[in-house]
Amino acid sequence: MEQHLEREWELFSGLLAKISGYREAIGLLQWDLRTGAPRKGADVRARTIGTLAGELFRLETSDEMGRYTDLFSRPASSATLTKVQRKIVEDCRKEYERSRSLPPERYEAYTVLAMQSETAWEEAKANDDYASFEPFLQQIVAFKQEFIDYWGVKNTRYDTLLDMYEPGLTTTKVDEVFGRLRSRLVPLVQRIASSANKPKTDFLDGLFDKEQQEKFGVYLLEQIGFDFEAGRADESVHPFATGLNPGDVRITNHYLADNLISSIFSALHEGGHALYEQNIAQELVGTPIAQGASMGIHESQSRLWENMIGRSLPFWKRHFGKLQQHFPEQLARVTPEQFYLAVNKVENSLIRTEADEVTYNLHIIIRYEIEKQIFNEGLSVQDLPAVWNAKYQEYLGITPPSHALGVLQDVHWSGGDFGYFASYSLGNMYAAQMMNTLRRELPDFEELIAAGNLLPIRDWLKEKIYVYGMSETPSEIIERVTGEPLNPDYLADYLEAKYREIYHLEASE
Amino acid sequence: MEQHLEREWELFSGLLAKISGYREAIGLLQWDLRTGAPRKGADVRARTIGTLAGELFRLETSDEMGRYTDLFSRPASSATLTKVQRKIVEDCRKEYERSRSLPPERYEAYTVLAMQSETAWEEAKANDDYASFEPFLQQIVAFKQEFIDYWGVKNTRYDTLLDMYEPGLTTTKVDEVFGRLRSRLVPLVQRIASSANKPKTDFLDGLFDKEQQEKFGVYLLEQIGFDFEAGRADESVHPFATGLNPGDVRITNHYLADNLISSIFSALHEGGHALYEQNIAQELVGTPIAQGASMGIHESQSRLWENMIGRSLPFWKRHFGKLQQHFPEQLARVTPEQFYLAVNKVENSLIRTEADEVTYNLHIIIRYEIEKQIFNEGLSVQDLPAVWNAKYQEYLGITPPSHALGVLQDVHWSGGDFGYFASYSLGNMYAAQMMNTLRRELPDFEELIAAGNLLPIRDWLKEKIYVYGMSETPSEIIERVTGEPLNPDYLADYLEAKYREIYHLEASE
Repeated sequence: MEQHLEREWELFSGLLAKISGYREAIGLLQWDLRTGAPRKGADVRARTIGTLAGELFRLETSDEMGRYTDLFSRPASSATLTKVQRKIVEDCRKEYERSRSLPPERYEAYTVLAMQSETAWEEAKANDDYASFEPFLQQIVAFKQEFIDYWGVKNTRYDTLLDMYEPGLTTTKVDEVFGRLRSRLVPLVQRIASSANKPKTDFLDGLFDKEQQEKFGVYLLEQIGFDFEAGRADESVHPFATGLNPGDVRITNHYLADNLISSIFSALHEGGHALYEQNIAQELVGTPIAQGASMGIHESQSRLWENMIGRSLPFWKRHFGKLQQHFPEQLARVTPEQFYLAVNKVENSLIRTEADEVTYNLHIIIRYEIEKQIFNEGLSVQDLPAVWNAKYQEYLGITPPSHALGVLQDVHWSGGDFGYFASYSLGNMYAAQMMNTLRRELPDFEELIAAGNLLPIRDWLKEKIYVYGMSETPSEIIERVTGEPLNPDYLADYLEAKYREIYHLEASE
Repeated sequence: MEQHLEREWELFSGLLAKISGYREAIGLLQWDLRTGAPRKGADVRARTIGTLAGELFRLETSDEMGRYTDLFSRPASSATLTKVQRKIVEDCRKEYERSRSLPPERYEAYTVLAMQSETAWEEAKANDDYASFEPFLQQIVAFKQEFIDYWGVKNTRYDTLLDMYEPGLTTTKVDEVFGRLRSRLVPLVQRIASSANKPKTDFLDGLFDKEQQEKFGVYLLEQIGFDFEAGRADESVHPFATGLNPGDVRITNHYLADNLISSIFSALHEGGHALYEQNIAQELVGTPIAQGASMGIHESQSRLWENMIGRSLPFWKRHFGKLQQHFPEQLARVTPEQFYLAVNKVENSLIRTEADEVTYNLHIIIRYEIEKQIFNEGLSVQDLPAVWNAKYQEYLGITPPSHALGVLQDVHWSGGDFGYFASYSLGNMYAAQMMNTLRRELPDFEELIAAGNLLPIRDWLKEKIYVYGMSETPSEIIERVTGEPLNPDYLADYLEAKYREIYHLEASE
């Protein structure tokens, strides 16, 4: 790199480090608010977060940011950069252009509306009153449509939204993979529903001491290789993971006396997110790519640890004895196999967040199809409940008895997060596809799990995925790791094989 | 206020709110680092704090700040302000001018030196090697001398430093009050030392379970009226209190198995700081005066709760039974009176932070006199150890056997905090003087304490002191509350009366 470019890169790095600092501060302020901040300080805290978020936005969209990203996007200077540096410039430029393309007063109006809309949604859900929420959702959608025009339409209008969560992903690609997945999962779900071999779950119906749940959760985090010197585990209403930097990754869990399963799989789920963040390469720290590659890739790691490892038979053969020690009264007469079956029970249920590994994807596909209809086919907000209910009947064979248990169940749309839902199932598909490669490259995979030796698995994922952070796109990652583009058959194969055995389904059916 | 001034005030308030936001964020980042942040994130965290502190400094010294404070300092516009608004303008202007008067490159050089100097001090203390620290301290003093010239000399050079911690305080005034205090305490300490009636403390020599200590600490905080919905209590290496805003005030404590007394009185000390911060008027939130009036006034509240209430006989008559429940084995055969005597034992010791209520002030007076000699009389840094040891011999009758236990014991000077020490004893004097008024206005003071009814005392302090925050100067507060300027006799009277009884001293001596 020429000397003057080197100097410019140094200055640009200073700006990026500053941006990282603001992100860390905001991350901590939010974490604190959700874990232990006193109630009476919450209003002031919200304003403080607003102040810093405003400053962060100002930095990301500053003339300075424009100047550096313009300079380093030019072929002559871009050619002097490393691949990682080019990715940084690209991402910053994309964010910069996206934000600068919106008239500030429109963005501000949208921010205010989104907050009101979330409040309206909360009330509407509590009162099972879609009509009261509809006008807010109308406006949110109208704003998004307006913004899509500012941002620029990519192939279809909905592509523009998808790209915000999964860079490079198109409606064409999602249609293809979700279509294929749906065509294999709908019959699987039907066969499971008509199977007579239902797992017993009555031993999970009792009450489970919260402190014991917490201890077992910490044990699980230790088992998967969560580094407690580079992170911590706390309690909050809803479990979440937040990476302030790779040396400070925090997860939370909730402990419900009547739901042992929830804290166990939340620990593994958030733990999976955390392993990713803790193992991002040190060289990326202080840049905007010291984070997961996308929502979908991030979710692939939480799902892989939660479901593909955490809901496997060898895992419970190894760890069920430990769980029994924490709950001797409730679990003394249960076998590891019975527990394994119980935590893999499939049910056609109404609520996405409570769904099992198989039906979960159908919940997502329904949301994806509806979002696409809204933005690409002019589906009116007024018609959402009817479309929602029809799809639930078609794919899952059930019709929500209320909107609260139907179209109003998720917060996402109220805040304008259209395009986000797909990430969850993309995560499942990425995970299954990566897992297929992992099992080929670590042939003693099941023995490792059964022996409680999970570190070789974590290290494989670290080397192949985690260290890269956001320095590659999702499609670059999946192709480099597995040798082929995203392919939904791996997930379908995995689910068919696993649940055929659990539900004793005929292979020939 | 005229309309254009109103508009300007609104904009100024926006800047102040932003500054408050940065302070809250930095406060939380530091609190977190000292309570539970994972070790491996500490380096990045330090940089993040640096980023935000830099931005805070930029805001406080911005042209914008200069413009608003200039505008509202002019007689015509100042006349339209309330008293509180004028205090805000004054404080901001003072801070602005102080910071702007330093050449940025000199301030930066000083900041770097101060960090190196603290590290050098740590090593010097560990190795009992004053010579290795001396060159750093030389430079720190030289910088402070240089800065005093930039800041402007107030009466004497040392006054400029005193004023930073205790606005308006002069060397003349401190000479007067410390001189008077010393003349009464030195003989008191001698009489105590030669008394045959030493309190027994052997029952404090055992080990005390940390969890029980923590529970009792929380109990004490509840007793004094700490609001757990507007604050929290955590553990850290050194106890501290930090007010993020009046709705979020956090204290910490440490629990040493071989030192029960430490956690008890730290809870009351930090709790006293916290009561002050929690009860600052809501109207001040978002301004720079939503904090304690000065270091000294703040310390008066921690000392008042720790010593004047917490080390009183009625307090332990009420609460010793509870303490016994936590430590039945160690304390079952101890009476409240014996415990009261034990926690008030006076010893001529070497270390300030471990000193009792009486000798503590002599430790401070020694430091004050030395600092004054450095800045006003040219005492050389090389001669500090000799002067230190001579004063310890003169006032306390002991000579430190090493510099680690002498001149190297405190961190303050290594970081350039000259002028700070005086605050501790000012706090004791303010507290005793306020207490005198409080006892007059709440004549059943001792009965309230004995009945465990501390809220009327807290509410008196709240109404007289806490709600004002920093909207008055220390001297305005002490005169409004007690009807007279700072008077050291209240502290001397209080200590003489209390310890005459404890040590059975002859009144006539």
